[in-house]
Amino acid sequence: MCWNTYMRWRLPLVCLLWEVAMIVLFGVFVRFDPEADAHWKEEQRQKNLTSDIENDFYFRYPSFQDVHVMIFVGFGFLMTFLQRYGFGAVGFNFLLAAFGIQWALLMQGWFHSFENGKILIGVENLINADFCVGSVCIAFGAILGKTSPVQLLILTLFQVTLFAVNEYILISLLHVKDAGGSMTIHTFGAYFGLTVTRILYRPNLEQSKDKQGSVYHSDLFAMIGTLYLWMYWPSFNSAVSNHGDAQHRAAINTYCSLASCVLTTVAFSSLLQKKGKLDMVHIQNATLAGGVAVGTGAEMMLTPYGSLIVGFLCGIVSTVGFVYLMVSAAQRNSSLLPLRERK
Amino acid sequence: MCWNTYMRWRLPLVCLLWEVAMIVLFGVFVRFDPEADAHWKEEQRQKNLTSDIENDFYFRYPSFQDVHVMIFVGFGFLMTFLQRYGFGAVGFNFLLAAFGIQWALLMQGWFHSFENGKILIGVENLINADFCVGSVCIAFGAILGKTSPVQLLILTLFQVTLFAVNEYILISLLHVKDAGGSMTIHTFGAYFGLTVTRILYRPNLEQSKDKQGSVYHSDLFAMIGTLYLWMYWPSFNSAVSNHGDAQHRAAINTYCSLASCVLTTVAFSSLLQKKGKLDMVHIQNATLAGGVAVGTGAEMMLTPYGSLIVGFLCGIVSTVGFVYLMVSAAQRNSSLLPLRERK
Amino acid sequence: MCWNTYMRWRLPLVCLLWEVAMIVLFGVFVRFDPEADAHWKEEQRQKNLTSDIENDFYFRYPSFQDVHVMIFVGFGFLMTFLQRYGFGAVGFNFLLAAFGIQWALLMQGWFHSFENGKILIGVENLINADFCVGSVCIAFGAILGKTSPVQLLILTLFQVTLFAVNEYILISLLHVKDAGGSMTIHTFGAYFGLTVTRILYRPNLEQSKDKQGSVYHSDLFAMIGTLYLWMYWPSFNSAVSNHGDAQHRAAINTYCSLASCVLTTVAFSSLLQKKGKLDMVHIQNATLAGGVAVGTGAEMMLTPYGSLIVGFLCGIVSTVGFVYLMVSAAQRNSSLLPLRERK
Repeated sequence: MCWNTYMRWRLPLVCLLWEVAMIVLFGVFVRFDPEADAHWKEEQRQKNLTSDIENDFYFRYPSFQDVHVMIFVGFGFLMTFLQRYGFGAVGFNFLLAAFGIQWALLMQGWFHSFENGKILIGVENLINADFCVGSVCIAFGAILGKTSPVQLLILTLFQVTLFAVNEYILISLLHVKDAGGSMTIHTFGAYFGLTVTRILYRPNLEQSKDKQGSVYHSDLFAMIGTLYLWMYWPSFNSAVSNHGDAQHRAAINTYCSLASCVLTTVAFSSLLQKKGKLDMVHIQNATLAGGVAVGTGAEMMLTPYGSLIVGFLCGIVSTVGFVYLMVSAAQRNSSLLPLRERK
Repeated sequence: MCWNTYMRWRLPLVCLLWEVAMIVLFGVFVRFDPEADAHWKEEQRQKNLTSDIENDFYFRYPSFQDVHVMIFVGFGFLMTFLQRYGFGAVGFNFLLAAFGIQWALLMQGWFHSFENGKILIGVENLINADFCVGSVCIAFGAILGKTSPVQLLILTLFQVTLFAVNEYILISLLHVKDAGGSMTIHTFGAYFGLTVTRILYRPNLEQSKDKQGSVYHSDLFAMIGTLYLWMYWPSFNSAVSNHGDAQHRAAINTYCSLASCVLTTVAFSSLLQKKGKLDMVHIQNATLAGGVAVGTGAEMMLTPYGSLIVGFLCGIVSTVGFVYLMVSAAQRNSSLLPLRERK
Repeated sequence: MCWNTYMRWRLPLVCLLWEVAMIVLFGVFVRFDPEADAHWKEEQRQKNLTSDIENDFYFRYPSFQDVHVMIFVGFGFLMTFLQRYGFGAVGFNFLLAAFGIQWALLMQGWFHSFENGKILIGVENLINADFCVGSVCIAFGAILGKTSPVQLLILTLFQVTLFAVNEYILISLLHVKDAGGSMTIHTFGAYFGLTVTRILYRPNLEQSKDKQGSVYHSDLFAMIGTLYLWMYWPSFNSAVSNHGDAQHRAAINTYCSLASCVLTTVAFSSLLQKKGKLDMVHIQNATLAGGVAVGTGAEMMLTPYGSLIVGFLCGIVSTVGFVYLMVSAAQRNSSLLPLRERK
């Protein structure tokens, strides 16, 4: 009885207390960036900007909205192919991301935008917070259906904190160039998720496998997630690049790499299947590899054919890796497994 | 027999005659705004604009498309959780909105953009027309499944007209500041819908409740609607703000309020349910409350923590209100009710 | 046995060899446009551009992303109403489009952007490649479920090639003005598809009709496709228009035509059905006719009422045409037919 009451109060309490903490910390630390402040007109005069359109908002807002869709619809629906966890996937993803972006604004702010005791936030900070939450969503894929909302919230708190520290070490201390966040976002997210899965792994979890059935329409929902991630990846990789030609170049490089990746994924998926049929899970995952792999170098003069080569190799590595590494403990637990048993 | 013939001809006749009326009225009154006119180059020289990018189109078009998605996909799919009315919801929403935006362009034009006997339309007018139709979609939620397409078209005609008059009184006569349209759009839409529901209410309608079943995939479709409304709300609140820092600020304030609202909604939804389970309907509706509530003040120097507080309170008020006011006549009829009986 | 081995290797081989060919051709011919090149700063000084925001990227990227969504989600999901081909529709559409955009960048580049032995690609080329693939997706609608992935890839190769030649003749030799690509994209795509269908037509294909069943949720997925095509059509028609007022005008004209088209489609769809009920297939197809028809003239001073008239007529012609021409061989094969037999 006591335990039940505790359980019942736990989620509301965590949500409310953490949100109150956010409000207090935002009240103490967070203010508008000069570009979003009512005093911008003065700033604009000092910088000799001739027009309102030179506000950073117009350089980045369309990309920000694309990234936002990737985080909430893309990663949310990518996981809906499991009938039983469809709701959980979309709903929990929503809860985590909403908390995660607030905590990421603070953590990233302390490390990167801290001036005179204040964090000044603008559209670029919002994009970076979304990036950080993207890394949580990637890890989330590995532990789906094994954890309660409260556990997921606690993991989000830890992961966002570690993400910001890791990003600070890589970018600010080691001066690594990582435009599309391949290292800070994707690699970090994947390893965090696999580590957590390994810690949480219990042999009898195997018995719950039957919860992981897949149905026809769930796969179509998952395709919505895949397509939005694929289509908007050029925005993801170019969102925080330098203004002008760098953003332009990052978008083109990502576009080329993604297109090339689809063809080699289909080729190897078809090759490695017994009956030569395509496996939708390969397509869903490997096609995205092209976007991730080109992330770090997207802003550089990679040239269009260089990007095609990156995508070409990624589609192969990702599909072959997926098929042959499936026996590892991490992937035995992964929610992606049972889909292969689909009729 | 006569009645049947009449019924059969009614929808085509209303559609065709009203569209002819639109064409005649557009022919008499509507012309391009100077920013969309072939003579813009001269205008540009007079205003000392140095570049084509300073055309209002580039300030507002990305936000316009986001608002467009909110109206047609967001509100359309929000209602699809009712299996029986899924098609009707999306299809009728489409018909109403397509008629509504044309009539709104005229009504709002007469009140706000009427110069020398002509209404000059540009991208800002398109956004305002979408806003007006958004108010119709909100009202539509309350009367779904109780009215025919012709009745819905007539209601749209009335509501758009009243909307424009109400907006004229609030904005032009009383000089109220209402950037995100919390008053003109959401409050007006909700009360209009509830009034219509009360008028149309018949006790025996209760018996048709079994038509309102919900199924698993319908809820996922409804989540698509919810997520698009949630993600694009920053565009909604900043779409017609002043150029530069005001648009930037409105987007950040809305983003903060929405994020905060999700946490308190989950907390109170979990608290008020008998078994501590989350109710998807609360999440679908209350998370949006944060966007609506911050609408009026989004453009102001609300500061990020101010927005978090607004979202915090909204999530609580909206969820508690939804749970305790469900017995009222309006909500007993509301299509949102039966979902709580979901397994 | 040999045949089976050959069959199994065919798809992987085609995908890999063609992708290698793309990489070689890109390596020889394709470089970045000056606007996306690291030397843009010099270029910018020569052209007297005052700000980074005048990079073509900021004029066109939001429209590009909308067009991208139309091609992959819009056309992909438009075809999902056939339960059996749902996966195939979305997945094959993805494969074709990913190959098609690479080949289109080359073909269109050789004809239109070839300077000093190099094709210089920027965001406008990406949009044009998406347009070209749009024409493939339109043809694809007519042959869905009758061809293997390899056949579809070969058809894509042919169609993109013919598309580029046809475009070169119309635009560069005959100097035809075709802003929204009504002639080059839609008419060409439709006739190519119908011709291929006629060639592939075998009487016993009729027996496979039972594969073309439709289910409730499939129609909702198809509505997602329809709505995205409808909503983003203003971006489609304005994406490669001249900077400034021309893009602004093209978007407004398309918006008006699309709104008007919905009403006449609903009117005639309701009129021509025996029971006065709406046919979702009419709505799905005819509402888009308004966007296609206004394509060629979207950039011109068509005026808002002119666009309404175009949409008005299109909705009628498209719906009446669909109903009365259904007996033609082309449409008897068309995948759209069986939906009319829906309960």
